[in-house]
Amino acid sequence: MAPAPVRPAARVATQQQDVWSIINEAAAASPIQPIVNMGQGFFGYNPPKFVTDAAKSALDRVECNQYSPTKGRPRLRKALANAYSPFFGRTLDPETDVVVTTGANEGMLSAFMAFLEQGDEVIVFEPFFDQYISNIEMPGGKVVYVPMHPPASGATKTSSAAEWSFDIAAFEAAISPRTKMVVINSPHNPIGKVFSRSELTAIGEICVKHSIIILSDEVYDRLYYVPFTRIATISPEIAALTITVGSGGKIFYCTGWRVGWLIGPKELIKYASAAHTRICYSSVSPLQEATAIGLEEAEENGFWEESKREMKGKMDSFNKIWDELGLPYSDPEGGYFVLVNMSRVKLPESYEFPSHVANRPRDFKLAWFLIMELGVAAIPPTEFFTPQNAHIVEDYLRFAVCKDDEVLETAKERLRGLKKYID
Amino acid sequence: MAPAPVRPAARVATQQQDVWSIINEAAAASPIQPIVNMGQGFFGYNPPKFVTDAAKSALDRVECNQYSPTKGRPRLRKALANAYSPFFGRTLDPETDVVVTTGANEGMLSAFMAFLEQGDEVIVFEPFFDQYISNIEMPGGKVVYVPMHPPASGATKTSSAAEWSFDIAAFEAAISPRTKMVVINSPHNPIGKVFSRSELTAIGEICVKHSIIILSDEVYDRLYYVPFTRIATISPEIAALTITVGSGGKIFYCTGWRVGWLIGPKELIKYASAAHTRICYSSVSPLQEATAIGLEEAEENGFWEESKREMKGKMDSFNKIWDELGLPYSDPEGGYFVLVNMSRVKLPESYEFPSHVANRPRDFKLAWFLIMELGVAAIPPTEFFTPQNAHIVEDYLRFAVCKDDEVLETAKERLRGLKKYID
Repeated sequence: MAPAPVRPAARVATQQQDVWSIINEAAAASPIQPIVNMGQGFFGYNPPKFVTDAAKSALDRVECNQYSPTKGRPRLRKALANAYSPFFGRTLDPETDVVVTTGANEGMLSAFMAFLEQGDEVIVFEPFFDQYISNIEMPGGKVVYVPMHPPASGATKTSSAAEWSFDIAAFEAAISPRTKMVVINSPHNPIGKVFSRSELTAIGEICVKHSIIILSDEVYDRLYYVPFTRIATISPEIAALTITVGSGGKIFYCTGWRVGWLIGPKELIKYASAAHTRICYSSVSPLQEATAIGLEEAEENGFWEESKREMKGKMDSFNKIWDELGLPYSDPEGGYFVLVNMSRVKLPESYEFPSHVANRPRDFKLAWFLIMELGVAAIPPTEFFTPQNAHIVEDYLRFAVCKDDEVLETAKERLRGLKKYID
Repeated sequence: MAPAPVRPAARVATQQQDVWSIINEAAAASPIQPIVNMGQGFFGYNPPKFVTDAAKSALDRVECNQYSPTKGRPRLRKALANAYSPFFGRTLDPETDVVVTTGANEGMLSAFMAFLEQGDEVIVFEPFFDQYISNIEMPGGKVVYVPMHPPASGATKTSSAAEWSFDIAAFEAAISPRTKMVVINSPHNPIGKVFSRSELTAIGEICVKHSIIILSDEVYDRLYYVPFTRIATISPEIAALTITVGSGGKIFYCTGWRVGWLIGPKELIKYASAAHTRICYSSVSPLQEATAIGLEEAEENGFWEESKREMKGKMDSFNKIWDELGLPYSDPEGGYFVLVNMSRVKLPESYEFPSHVANRPRDFKLAWFLIMELGVAAIPPTEFFTPQNAHIVEDYLRFAVCKDDEVLETAKERLRGLKKYID
């Protein structure tokens, strides 16, 4: 008798192609090569030399190539405590208030694994970073969505990303007795919004009222162009419920290093740390050491200011093309993504899209068109919304500007080709 | 009203100290410093230069510092397919038959997450590597244990690790309608046994009969001192159910790099790969590249033979101390651990152990005594058994010999101090 076929678990049974693969594959198939890939948020340049030098020297040290303590190398935890204590207005204990994770992604999974039981609910604002969803669902959590909205004039004029808004009553209405956590993301991907102190206070106070854990994804925390408030700093009651997520890959331009961290009160961190140990055991040693050295040196050598100035420069320089074309965008307050409204772009009626694009919202068609006709790849942001709210951003595309200046210039030159499709 | 305290999920609620922390902390507290730490299986020396050089050069390449494809860098998947196809007797497809994971540990978690539903059972042989258990329990799996036994003469004479045996009837009896997977480990940690072809055939045929997925942990696959059979090679039916686990950290002496992989039929790998994407997204890029280059070069520069010869040399040289002391051991057939039987060692009756050691089996007391009195750390192997079967190894200690030759000589010199405690 033939054995029964092996069935996968429900959590992986749906094999759906993610937006990154769709866009990267389309980019590879474009007739215009090399493509300018402003899709995924990887950097088009290397980490700063003082950080790669630190990694190289770590590779020569025996202990830096072997297992690190599960909660992270002592030097990195100390460097994180030193670097972040001033921001949090309290002295972080490197032994208890910090845990190093395998990228921010595994850090967030660790937090969800630490606190979610089957059927517990997590509130997520739309648009959301897509990995949140599977990370919440892995431990059996259920996502409850609260949409954010662009300004009403988003299709006609450029305005600050600050004008994306949410309804605090809708947030409170989303809370149920099963609500265990909420995910905040500031500076926000893909909106570029830095949540205001008053917005965060409103969210935080509701969380305190209902004992909801706040997972604050602050991986773009070194790239803000307006005043930046960390929700954990608003009150001791909010701090007691907040885990802040950070990323070495984002701050040092090395998304492939997989060094992230969680910072928070020891009563929360100890459980996230236990989950991390059960997921990845420990994280990559030589690159933890390099990140530690990077944090130690960055303060003194002025890297943070330089990094922010450079990225803001790239953003402003790139966005001139939209001013030139008369396409409105959300002017980012932080991070390296810009959302551009393309409602004025008329796609040729006879244009043929492949079926996996044709049956998607208009932003997928816009993305396909730009890749194939202009040689510039961007991300369709409806992927960061639930189907019922996807219409909110179906005219937008997300561009990542963390690329070399010449690449950005090439992109601008190519995007001038849009002119003839704009009425 | 004060908010309700935040409760952790059951999966992390038990904050038990693991054996590694207990031993490492005791080692740090020993009056004899520097301690010779033969406890945890990290290497006391660096990866080979051709591998660290590869890592350094990867750090200079922009794409090697950014996100890798979730299933692994193409160069590493190709190198793995090339290196492993001859062992598996089929041409592995780097696109479908291999997935790169964040160490073997996260690879195994990915496999469990891919196939286990709440309440599904996994058969694990005792002794087991302790991370298996939490990895199985994370997705809601239940562990069913089958004990292995040392030879009856284990306390009186040295014999081959091959003589550790299990009852195949007990294995088959452990199967229930909920049995979904079995974990095999060969070469075995901590026993040092290389499972024989006939043992693996017996296990494999039963798995085929019951459609049980075989997760074969072969992370010590480059270190075998007797003929080594991979269970996936025994028959096409067994191969169709087998996922083989490998580790860059183990084969290139860099346990802190967190580069591992799963190899198997595409129908199994695709689900493990989906789980991996949801757990860690992607794995560490520059060290994937270095591992790829390492695999490409190792074959040609004779590294595998050299590595095996060196480790076998360390093992044989170190074990002379047991011959000298008249303490029997399981002579390993693979890997770098040796289990030594210390039933002849009489601990002083008045010796005071701290409470967290005093209430543990005798092997914990032996380990504590060696750390504090002789300055040599080893691992108590009862930790790799369930409480009811722990007595099987309560007279044993596990020593890791993957240390510099001078360190091993120091260990031997210190262990001579055991003489006066042997009757």
